[in-house]
Amino acid sequence: MSKPKIVVLGAGYAGLVTTRHLTKKLSAEEAEIVLINKHNYHYESTWLHEVAAGTKTPNQARFMISDVVNPNRVRLIYDTVVKVNKDEKRVVLENSEVTYDYLVVALGFVTNTFGIKGMEENAFFIQDIDSARLIAEHIEYQFAKYSAGEITDDELLNIVVGGGGFTGIEFVGELAEIVPKLCKKYDIPRNKVRIINVEAAPTVLPMFDKDLVSYALQYLESRGVEFRMSAAISECTKEGFIVGEDKELIKGGTVVWTGGVTGNPVLGQSGFELVKGKVNVDADLRMPGEENIFVLGDCSWVMNKETGRPYAPTGQLATQEGVVAAENIKALIHNEPLKDFVFDDKGTVASLGVANGIGNILSGTKLQGKAAAAMKKVVDDRTLFLIGGPKLVLKKGKFRPF
Amino acid sequence: MSKPKIVVLGAGYAGLVTTRHLTKKLSAEEAEIVLINKHNYHYESTWLHEVAAGTKTPNQARFMISDVVNPNRVRLIYDTVVKVNKDEKRVVLENSEVTYDYLVVALGFVTNTFGIKGMEENAFFIQDIDSARLIAEHIEYQFAKYSAGEITDDELLNIVVGGGGFTGIEFVGELAEIVPKLCKKYDIPRNKVRIINVEAAPTVLPMFDKDLVSYALQYLESRGVEFRMSAAISECTKEGFIVGEDKELIKGGTVVWTGGVTGNPVLGQSGFELVKGKVNVDADLRMPGEENIFVLGDCSWVMNKETGRPYAPTGQLATQEGVVAAENIKALIHNEPLKDFVFDDKGTVASLGVANGIGNILSGTKLQGKAAAAMKKVVDDRTLFLIGGPKLVLKKGKFRPF
Repeated sequence: MSKPKIVVLGAGYAGLVTTRHLTKKLSAEEAEIVLINKHNYHYESTWLHEVAAGTKTPNQARFMISDVVNPNRVRLIYDTVVKVNKDEKRVVLENSEVTYDYLVVALGFVTNTFGIKGMEENAFFIQDIDSARLIAEHIEYQFAKYSAGEITDDELLNIVVGGGGFTGIEFVGELAEIVPKLCKKYDIPRNKVRIINVEAAPTVLPMFDKDLVSYALQYLESRGVEFRMSAAISECTKEGFIVGEDKELIKGGTVVWTGGVTGNPVLGQSGFELVKGKVNVDADLRMPGEENIFVLGDCSWVMNKETGRPYAPTGQLATQEGVVAAENIKALIHNEPLKDFVFDDKGTVASLGVANGIGNILSGTKLQGKAAAAMKKVVDDRTLFLIGGPKLVLKKGKFRPF
Repeated sequence: MSKPKIVVLGAGYAGLVTTRHLTKKLSAEEAEIVLINKHNYHYESTWLHEVAAGTKTPNQARFMISDVVNPNRVRLIYDTVVKVNKDEKRVVLENSEVTYDYLVVALGFVTNTFGIKGMEENAFFIQDIDSARLIAEHIEYQFAKYSAGEITDDELLNIVVGGGGFTGIEFVGELAEIVPKLCKKYDIPRNKVRIINVEAAPTVLPMFDKDLVSYALQYLESRGVEFRMSAAISECTKEGFIVGEDKELIKGGTVVWTGGVTGNPVLGQSGFELVKGKVNVDADLRMPGEENIFVLGDCSWVMNKETGRPYAPTGQLATQEGVVAAENIKALIHNEPLKDFVFDDKGTVASLGVANGIGNILSGTKLQGKAAAAMKKVVDDRTLFLIGGPKLVLKKGKFRPF
């Protein structure tokens, strides 16, 4: 009998952790492992707002997959997944096809515009390395055009960010860092450039309590970020967002939408049953009714039994799911019972630029200021450790021991 | 009797050297010196092709005027010259007016499109720091858009450069350096990007002999630069250059015109008599018929008595003119005879990227390859020395002693 073939789709947090844990838990004789990813690199999707602002280079936020996964142990295929044919246990790629015995679907998120008119055509998205660095380049290009007199309208220097969630707020925090530097570089007065965050709800960062949110708002406002809350966007035009009943135009030369994400469209193209764009998985992380398919990270909803609601999608959640998925695949191969996933919430920290932040850690401890900024870097380094081990922390970590 | 007031317009090579030599030759009691410049910085106009390619940052190619001119000795005015009223001995600035006893007009060049249709609207110019870095930003923005899938036409990656003179050839040399780096950064195969130089004449670099030109062409072609010679541009559209009788379109996402320069338009606005956009000055560098006005650098033609034709406009020429202008102003103040300007040609070196070049030095010695590249850096550092002294060479020089 040939050895079972495990195919992992996606080398994000969930897919990469699954793959690395599989190589540790299973010998080369026990299983063949295949990892399929669009690029030959992994990127930190929770750092993309920094790439989009230009406070981090793309290379600081990505690393070669072959640096953390042994290509002699894991077959690496760099290709784009078109769809999964689960009846035939086959994955269709753009350039080939791959069969599997066990499948891990960890294809990440795409931006969700909720059908807002013009958003797809006119707004930038923080979706992957390429789309994020395009934003940084676009912002700098506006400054270059302005200083060369090619554009003269001050409002084209404005950066307008839709969405007051995690990404939107962390992004404007980074913009508050980079804008003064760009102003200096291009000899443009700081007060000519507005950073405007637009959110439909009456507040931002709903995952944090009121005190922390008001701390965050005050700090960001002191650094020149403007907030427009209770401002629902009805349309995105080439000029900016149209908000409110009086159809006010909030103008900007750079318009970014961070207001929502959903699971990779491959899920739908594969005919999977979806709830709000993702698969509702069982407690063992498998697709309901499927013996051999795990769906992880931003492609699935995992129920929190305590609250009766799914866990919020984070890098931390995806990473922990990867560990359990690898354990459960091993259990399947060894004919042992599978275990249920339980999220061990280490807390949530949001950065507000490079030197500030807010966070909830463990149960109920609140953090703000420098301590939260430091904790955020600890969290980011811990993630690097989990996906790539100590060498990766040394290479790409935000706290460096030297 | 009040002391005479010398006003220098422009802090390019000619204006800055004039100013510095005036401060050395004349005591503070003998004359008041005013230097008027649009920006608070001087830039190396002969390095702008490097800024435009992105191989040098704007800050590497500029320095603060107050770093090389003592503001206690020279009154520095940062403003734009509107026109000179020579009958009233008055200079009109955007924000004020200044009177003078002696005037040095050293306002540099602007790009000359020779009226080619659409050139002004659709091509980039290498004219000053702001316009040069806009080109570098624009090129990188095309790469960012392509890698993010926002543009899909490969031809939008093409960089098309009109003009095979000094700037055009040195510019494509720098592009040959930067394009492979951008390709790597943006995960784009090198062969997708074309660098195309378009020249109406049957050859490029007319100031060099045939051997050196063919060396240059061969080298640049080996690095992926394409040459289209005998290709007169009849029009520049949003898409590229239209050339030849069959109206062929040479397409590019970045279209740069380097095919000509002329004197600053202030000359015409001031009613000066012009020949091809510049003032034909007397041998002592004064405007004909004017006792007290010197016109230098790219604003004037100085006759070479040996050839009966004006000297070719270069940074070297402008620098030497500055020295003589300062001496002649001193002579005027001291009622001594003025001297005629004679150009001491040290030779001409063109860079072909960072590690290659061609040049004629002294009388008849030809250089090519690494020696020419090194000589070019020596020339650039020598210019820095002449305008700013040894400290400036240490700060901005291309050869560094450490």
